[in-house]
Amino acid sequence: MARSLPVPDDALADEVYGREATAFVHVGRPADPTMRALARFAGPDDSLGFAFVGGETVLFPPAPFLEDAKRRFPGDAVVDPSSLEAPSVAEGVAEFLADRRDGGTVLVPRHLPHDAALFLEQAGFDLTSSDVVDRVRYVKTPAEVDRVRRVQAAAETAMGRVAGVLADATSDGDLRHDGATLSTERLRRIANAALAGEGVDPAGNTTVAAGKGAARVRFGGDVPIRAGDTVVVDLTPRGSQGYHTDFARTFVVDTDGGWDRRAHVAVAEGIDAGIETARPGERAAAVHQAVAGEIHTFGFPTDPSRDVGFTHDGVHGIGLACREAPTPESGDTLEAGVVLAVEGGVYDPTEGGVRLEEPVLVTEDGPERLTDASRSLRPENW
Amino acid sequence: MARSLPVPDDALADEVYGREATAFVHVGRPADPTMRALARFAGPDDSLGFAFVGGETVLFPPAPFLEDAKRRFPGDAVVDPSSLEAPSVAEGVAEFLADRRDGGTVLVPRHLPHDAALFLEQAGFDLTSSDVVDRVRYVKTPAEVDRVRRVQAAAETAMGRVAGVLADATSDGDLRHDGATLSTERLRRIANAALAGEGVDPAGNTTVAAGKGAARVRFGGDVPIRAGDTVVVDLTPRGSQGYHTDFARTFVVDTDGGWDRRAHVAVAEGIDAGIETARPGERAAAVHQAVAGEIHTFGFPTDPSRDVGFTHDGVHGIGLACREAPTPESGDTLEAGVVLAVEGGVYDPTEGGVRLEEPVLVTEDGPERLTDASRSLRPENW
Repeated sequence: MARSLPVPDDALADEVYGREATAFVHVGRPADPTMRALARFAGPDDSLGFAFVGGETVLFPPAPFLEDAKRRFPGDAVVDPSSLEAPSVAEGVAEFLADRRDGGTVLVPRHLPHDAALFLEQAGFDLTSSDVVDRVRYVKTPAEVDRVRRVQAAAETAMGRVAGVLADATSDGDLRHDGATLSTERLRRIANAALAGEGVDPAGNTTVAAGKGAARVRFGGDVPIRAGDTVVVDLTPRGSQGYHTDFARTFVVDTDGGWDRRAHVAVAEGIDAGIETARPGERAAAVHQAVAGEIHTFGFPTDPSRDVGFTHDGVHGIGLACREAPTPESGDTLEAGVVLAVEGGVYDPTEGGVRLEEPVLVTEDGPERLTDASRSLRPENW
Repeated sequence: MARSLPVPDDALADEVYGREATAFVHVGRPADPTMRALARFAGPDDSLGFAFVGGETVLFPPAPFLEDAKRRFPGDAVVDPSSLEAPSVAEGVAEFLADRRDGGTVLVPRHLPHDAALFLEQAGFDLTSSDVVDRVRYVKTPAEVDRVRRVQAAAETAMGRVAGVLADATSDGDLRHDGATLSTERLRRIANAALAGEGVDPAGNTTVAAGKGAARVRFGGDVPIRAGDTVVVDLTPRGSQGYHTDFARTFVVDTDGGWDRRAHVAVAEGIDAGIETARPGERAAAVHQAVAGEIHTFGFPTDPSRDVGFTHDGVHGIGLACREAPTPESGDTLEAGVVLAVEGGVYDPTEGGVRLEEPVLVTEDGPERLTDASRSLRPENW
């Protein structure tokens, strides 16, 4: 059971006792992935406190969420805020700790809220930062990988719905579906409704871009989709247990087989090269370099300061955040259990954009692809 | 234009110059409502920095989001992280400020990340907390109210879809719809798909509870829905510009007109009493007391420590957070422009639960209801 927790108790114990500290403490909203990992459930959209002290994991919910927290927190104790004098969660954690320990070092994440830090210091504790949660989150347990697989399955169902709509669309220049113009916003809503229908949250992350808008990595506008447009669909939903995937495909209705096809081949070969590099001992930067190198051999620029060619990172971690370590900039070395999104793209303001992105698990035996979904540009091939 | 910003420049100027400070600074993810209000767009799921200094609003995006931020941040300047030596956003803001100002007081939200506070102090600045963002967020501009109205309209469409599914369901004890058992999870997905189809994000907040589960305020389980069950549907979606509504209805298929009807009358009268109290000069606690008092006159307990009767708060603010000031505990006095969710509920572990919740705008002339949606228990009356 403990192995399926985002941050198991023994990792907290090793950190606190190994560093001769008194406790580990954090305060934050569940939307903060560090708190999400510690609170171990999605919780309310309000500040929570968490402490590991005396060998126990303790949650501090705000008063309106006490009963909910008691029911759902899988740790050792939930503190009723009415048992404390403190008016806020941040102050309450400090009061709780001061009642039980006479000073010492408290380990905290670097981004602990400043007021919580001051309350702990006023209560007589020294603070030292700890990246234990980041380290534990970096390598996923099999249960966590399974959660990524499940949200990826939902993303594939939604992508299939998008492909189906594009395949069924009629064209008078602009695409039409169900008697109305098919715009990027309409297709975005169709994708998000399909995600929600599969029980996962679109999480505000869905990109649907078309035509010249597809040349922008994060296009949020609403334009009609036309035959021959590159249509980039990038889904980053969050499953019910908080884990994300990151999955992108590009479709063209009635492609003429020109720029879009050349770009698509380059991007597909690029992410295959990146995926092949995703092995224990490699750095994330090497995955990016493999993607970029392959795209470059197809004649596309790979200078991130330009707006033509491959202009973004080729890899990042996914988990409780939709973008987390490792990244090419983080310098992290890959290990078995790291889950990556490997992505390639080619953009051209005069042509549009092509992007493919896929989740990959790093294993001792090499990369394990977490999707075998069609990459075809033709939506009718999905 | 400035009046439609979540935090207008003149509010920041008044705070910084009025307190003889050097700057106002924050660091956080866009999921932090304070950063959402300052960054003025949804942004990436990654840490951003914000500074108001020298009369200008300045955004510090992480490198992968530089182009996106330049396009979408409506403030004065976007800082390219490659123009700074600092490896992190938190450090970059401190470096930027130290290059321009020789010490002084920097105002920060109480929950500024601790590392950002330390970097600013190391750069020679004194920190003092400021609640300017909370104060500005407390009173909504007409543009902000319009965003709540729009997300409420989407919530009503989704609620209508839920009512339609319940009205069309057949019953063999368990309800059936489209050839399968209608469970709480299935109905939750239908509600969320309808929200997403309207272009708003379910935001992980949708509650669909039935039968004995409806006696729990935040039920997340999956149980078959049966004829005669109270079905509580509570939607708290977030619109594309970040604003939430909070809207709850309760339905019963084939009600026998017993407990559920008595509870429904009490709750409806309760929220009407609460809404009527929502006037400038009143405290949020008075709104809660009005809801509770009315429910009590119908013979239901209103002791929050029990699991029978009205057990939760009757009011909270809505805006960039789905639960924000004022609350009964916050002690805030209502003003024109405050947007509230007024809610009443009656719960009984042997019977189920009934909840109604509606958004209300406080105006100089009294409460303005932001919904006139049917409150009927009978889904066929929607």
